[in-house]
Amino acid sequence: MSYNVAIVGATGAVGQQMIKMLEKSSLPVKTLKLLASKRSVGKTFLFKDQTIAVEETTENSFDGVDIALFSAGGKTSEKFAPYAVKAGAVVIDNTSHYRQNPNVPLIVPEVNAHALKNHKGIIACPNCSTIQMMMALEPIRQEWGLERIIVSTYQAVSGAGAKAIEETQKQLKQVLNEETPVKEVGATILPSGGDKKHYPIAFNALPQIDLFTDNDYTYEEMKMTKETKKIMEDETIKVSATCVRIPVLTAHSESVYIETKEIADINAVKQAISDFPGTILEDDPSEQIYPQAINAVGKTETFVGRIRKDLDVDNGIHMWVVSDNLLKGAAWNSVQIAESLHQQGLVHATKELLFELI
Amino acid sequence: MSYNVAIVGATGAVGQQMIKMLEKSSLPVKTLKLLASKRSVGKTFLFKDQTIAVEETTENSFDGVDIALFSAGGKTSEKFAPYAVKAGAVVIDNTSHYRQNPNVPLIVPEVNAHALKNHKGIIACPNCSTIQMMMALEPIRQEWGLERIIVSTYQAVSGAGAKAIEETQKQLKQVLNEETPVKEVGATILPSGGDKKHYPIAFNALPQIDLFTDNDYTYEEMKMTKETKKIMEDETIKVSATCVRIPVLTAHSESVYIETKEIADINAVKQAISDFPGTILEDDPSEQIYPQAINAVGKTETFVGRIRKDLDVDNGIHMWVVSDNLLKGAAWNSVQIAESLHQQGLVHATKELLFELI
Repeated sequence: MSYNVAIVGATGAVGQQMIKMLEKSSLPVKTLKLLASKRSVGKTFLFKDQTIAVEETTENSFDGVDIALFSAGGKTSEKFAPYAVKAGAVVIDNTSHYRQNPNVPLIVPEVNAHALKNHKGIIACPNCSTIQMMMALEPIRQEWGLERIIVSTYQAVSGAGAKAIEETQKQLKQVLNEETPVKEVGATILPSGGDKKHYPIAFNALPQIDLFTDNDYTYEEMKMTKETKKIMEDETIKVSATCVRIPVLTAHSESVYIETKEIADINAVKQAISDFPGTILEDDPSEQIYPQAINAVGKTETFVGRIRKDLDVDNGIHMWVVSDNLLKGAAWNSVQIAESLHQQGLVHATKELLFELI
Repeated sequence: MSYNVAIVGATGAVGQQMIKMLEKSSLPVKTLKLLASKRSVGKTFLFKDQTIAVEETTENSFDGVDIALFSAGGKTSEKFAPYAVKAGAVVIDNTSHYRQNPNVPLIVPEVNAHALKNHKGIIACPNCSTIQMMMALEPIRQEWGLERIIVSTYQAVSGAGAKAIEETQKQLKQVLNEETPVKEVGATILPSGGDKKHYPIAFNALPQIDLFTDNDYTYEEMKMTKETKKIMEDETIKVSATCVRIPVLTAHSESVYIETKEIADINAVKQAISDFPGTILEDDPSEQIYPQAINAVGKTETFVGRIRKDLDVDNGIHMWVVSDNLLKGAAWNSVQIAESLHQQGLVHATKELLFELI
């Protein structure tokens, strides 16, 4: 059993990592198809020892495809994922478009792979900032339960795509090499490509990721709230987030505060995190050991440290969670979903076509 | 009435700003003495239209000095502040050395200027990260009371001194101009000059400021806890902090979550913050208006925005607080303390010499 796999958005920051993660993965790949917009047609990339040319994504791109990994923005998923499903493929979508659809499982394989079994052709990969938080908190939830989460993020610019990386580097060079005042460097992308105003990220911290919603939280913040409840299958968990972009290229960091249902021993919490697959404990203040963004780049694991009791609240715990937002936060988690589908024998066309999606 | 003023640590990042803030201040300055360590002797700086040469700090530097502003590290304050007091000066100390001494008022003038009246010759200026949080929270505390605070900081490298700024710029240039891998750039100062290991701050977020204490919180984090209780004169306020250094040169940002004693209307909270002296409301999501580090640099005010109710807890409020750590966080707050002493007629030698301090 091996699969014809397609990547939609193959030239983007996440798409490029999907190629690498498929090479690393145990998933048996028969053929790989690289799809992107018209202007990328003709570009070639190496997969294992094969040179593969990029093709344009069209309604007919998915004939014979078994697994289609989407990471080209919500609009592309909305437009093309239904055609992939109709052609018999299983779609693993890395955009936010289908995440809250009740027919679409939202999956972090270490946490809720069981929820794949009723898929109807589309599976969603959660937001990067949610995934790494789930990897740190699921081992705690399993043993002591989770009452509430307050999280402040320190997110890398690569989450906004390859152009945001270029813009950040350009701004920093202008300030450092040409002594341009930081308020005068140009900004055209961050905080959000789709919003009206753009601000420099060089030597700055921007408390806006994605657009604002009606309740004065951003969509990014509301993703962390809604996706946590869906993945952990518990609508009662209280989650409020503050999502902030900082001048880091890759790897998100998070300051996470939780209250458990039952009071937990802090050493037992560390042990549970250490035992959880894909999560690595880095926690020794006496040796200044704690997770750092620059150490997480290129790794597929989630790193957790600075674990300590709240000073006043018996069931309160603080921690620092770091992971590569392009890998576990996107490409690796998507590929892991494909692996899990394969292992569970779930790579098959859906019996109930979701025609309303088209 | 005008005063002979001395700055101890005049050549440092904060000392330099103290000269500028004294120029801006209404405090009547008769003479200004610039003190530093031996190796800075002979350097000159301009104050108003006067050129002033730096002198070495000695036990005899304080004859005739009315007000001595200290910002040369805790050890220098410990060694020389008692001599300044003995010589009849009032010491305003910007280091952590005396902050928890029960004989030493810890002052943010807008919050607790009244506590100056029993000074015994030494007044402490709080930690930068605490001051700006107090400026945001005191207007709320006054109207609705404060039950608890959870804060995650995004702190600038200038809080670690002029050399930390140089190191950050050097690391960024190595990565951007010479393509040195970020893990291979040299680090000799951050996260804490006094600790064993040093890590790059370029494209990183370091969850350590100052050394670790026995409870796995850092001294910086415990300063925020202890100083808040002392300034607000309420030992029952629950405060837990996570203090993080990010690659920003100047201005600290803070993600602050609070629970009030009485449930507050969010528009009334915004009004109270807006009405508070020295605090500026910057909060309009529809126009992407929120505080930003790069806008706060060079300003003496504290900026507050992203004010919104917690999604689940009725008395919970989240906000984003930004201020120039060298100004309101240090130099300006110290000068404001001198102004307040002057206005209250409290610039006088202490009646009860604290001989045990020597």
